[in-house]
Amino acid sequence: MKFTCEKALLQAAISTASRAVSPKSSIPALEGILLEAGSDLRLTGYNLETGIRTIVSADITEPGSMVLGARLFGEIIRKLPDDIITFQSANYTVNIKCGMSEFNIMGTSSEEFPELPSVEYQNTLFIPQSRLRSMISQTLFAVSDNESRPIHTGSLFEAEGDTLTVVSVDGYRLALRREPIDKKEGADAFSFVVPGAALSEVEKICGDVDEDASVIQGARHVMFKVGNTMLVARRLEGEFLAYRQAIPRNNPIRIEGDTRMLLSSIDRVSLIISDKLKSPLRCIFDENVLRLSTKTAIGDANDICPLNGNGGGLEIGFNNKYLMDALKAAPADRVRLELSTGVSPCVILPVEGEENFLYMVLPVRLKAGE
Amino acid sequence: MKFTCEKALLQAAISTASRAVSPKSSIPALEGILLEAGSDLRLTGYNLETGIRTIVSADITEPGSMVLGARLFGEIIRKLPDDIITFQSANYTVNIKCGMSEFNIMGTSSEEFPELPSVEYQNTLFIPQSRLRSMISQTLFAVSDNESRPIHTGSLFEAEGDTLTVVSVDGYRLALRREPIDKKEGADAFSFVVPGAALSEVEKICGDVDEDASVIQGARHVMFKVGNTMLVARRLEGEFLAYRQAIPRNNPIRIEGDTRMLLSSIDRVSLIISDKLKSPLRCIFDENVLRLSTKTAIGDANDICPLNGNGGGLEIGFNNKYLMDALKAAPADRVRLELSTGVSPCVILPVEGEENFLYMVLPVRLKAGE
Repeated sequence: MKFTCEKALLQAAISTASRAVSPKSSIPALEGILLEAGSDLRLTGYNLETGIRTIVSADITEPGSMVLGARLFGEIIRKLPDDIITFQSANYTVNIKCGMSEFNIMGTSSEEFPELPSVEYQNTLFIPQSRLRSMISQTLFAVSDNESRPIHTGSLFEAEGDTLTVVSVDGYRLALRREPIDKKEGADAFSFVVPGAALSEVEKICGDVDEDASVIQGARHVMFKVGNTMLVARRLEGEFLAYRQAIPRNNPIRIEGDTRMLLSSIDRVSLIISDKLKSPLRCIFDENVLRLSTKTAIGDANDICPLNGNGGGLEIGFNNKYLMDALKAAPADRVRLELSTGVSPCVILPVEGEENFLYMVLPVRLKAGE
Repeated sequence: MKFTCEKALLQAAISTASRAVSPKSSIPALEGILLEAGSDLRLTGYNLETGIRTIVSADITEPGSMVLGARLFGEIIRKLPDDIITFQSANYTVNIKCGMSEFNIMGTSSEEFPELPSVEYQNTLFIPQSRLRSMISQTLFAVSDNESRPIHTGSLFEAEGDTLTVVSVDGYRLALRREPIDKKEGADAFSFVVPGAALSEVEKICGDVDEDASVIQGARHVMFKVGNTMLVARRLEGEFLAYRQAIPRNNPIRIEGDTRMLLSSIDRVSLIISDKLKSPLRCIFDENVLRLSTKTAIGDANDICPLNGNGGGLEIGFNNKYLMDALKAAPADRVRLELSTGVSPCVILPVEGEENFLYMVLPVRLKAGE
């Protein structure tokens, strides 16, 4: 195998493919990147859960394939000067030259590298990369890490008409984002569940650009195509929460507030809570005001946050972290909290515009003295 | 104890005093900050090695003293809004109010807090903070971490005439910085050794400003005064290396190079070396060129760095890290390397201007095939 390639391009490609490389594996090839030089140069990382393949523009003079340790390969290319890199291998010994620098390192056979699953296209949706990225980042935090309900360790992607809805849920809270898509191929409505770990990589691969990413639903897999890069992951099987029924939409108490102010009030009173000293966040919604308090063995904290609306003295407890996660993710300066009783969920929505996000947080029981 | 104080000032003072607070100690008071409100408000952190005391501008209405856990106290003040803080204690229960926020936490008696050592002034030198800071940061890396020679776990401060020289040495390398001082009180020449741990905090306390810091030599302690803050540490006792005799100044081979280019060449070939796979950096100084190479089980790396001067083919091995530390610290775009044989030390100096720094690195033996 022999090719020449611009340093910056190769560096970016290694960094992308490395996202799917196992840092430590019992199969050494999985700690490596598969290089395939044919009609183009392809770099692949695959940890048996998520696979990422990216194509680099290179001048290939001798085709071939091999596997190189991802960490060392990446570090070498990163530290080379900004110039054309010449890559040449013979019997798995690789010679890398650039400027006045030269490396000789060992690679292994590409035969030990597992094959990426092939995806039979069923349905495809197209959506700008930046939009897909924000939808993922604003829902991913609510994905469950509890393996006893595997289906909820991923996010539901639901395409219907011109709209994509992404939903994550972990039993205590729910995060929903909805945005228009650019176009669709296949059925009018379809849905599938993508593992959270794969989405976390899709988020990083997507740029802050308007160009479309395509999301392809296969029979057992899902594929994301972002520029010259594609990511493939197994779909999660099982019955995802019927989220529409789970969200109360007729909560009588509606209160509006500044997202940042709410967040800093909660953040402050949370100082008294630690992993060792857990305690619910006590909220009392009065007229145009939210009184927050917490109490643990460390001491107590009290805060007042101005709001618009009357809670009539409703007292409700929350897990402080869940409420903060939702407010941090909410892409809006002002949010509306919809509440009913002290034992029913709180729904968080944008005050203005389309309902392109919805967060739901379940309350926790308050004991006297907390 | 009762006082009011600006949030930003109190936050800065806690952060400064916290530098000398033990993160974990068998004496709980050492995990705290001593607050003393009298004619002024003083905050003290003391880990029995280094003590830091800082004075905050506050409106004291009730004098008193107590100890508060540094981490929690710091976090609470940091998260309060930018406003006036009211601090009030009664029976070691502290009430902290600011804006709409209120905390009640527990403190302990100041009697459990150890007293800072008192320093009898012997000699004092005055030097701009920014200059002191760079002198420390450019020599501290060469302080020994080997407790078997305690004297070398600190840096030598040597004041003579109008000059301060700071020297660190660890048996394999030496770092020296020399700068003029502003003024001096006491003897014409004096010297003392300051623990590396204390210097690392002095470096952080000094601002990037021209105002003088004062460095006070006491009988058994040394004190640094920086603005409203003072740091006290025990002097290290013992015989510091007679560094003047240790530095060869008549090395016949003199070569000049670009600091950054040298550094990146060494950095690149170092990729082949790891903690598990150690190997010396092989350097061959030829006419206007330095050939660098390393070889381990991972592979080999070769680099060429242009230089000015003729090394006549001198071959010499170095610990790559030691050479990089010196080049990273060197405050000059171009450096001169002074060499003699493959088994004698390399001296690194500025090409231009005063000799305000000097680094020395001892060679390591090269084996065939390395």
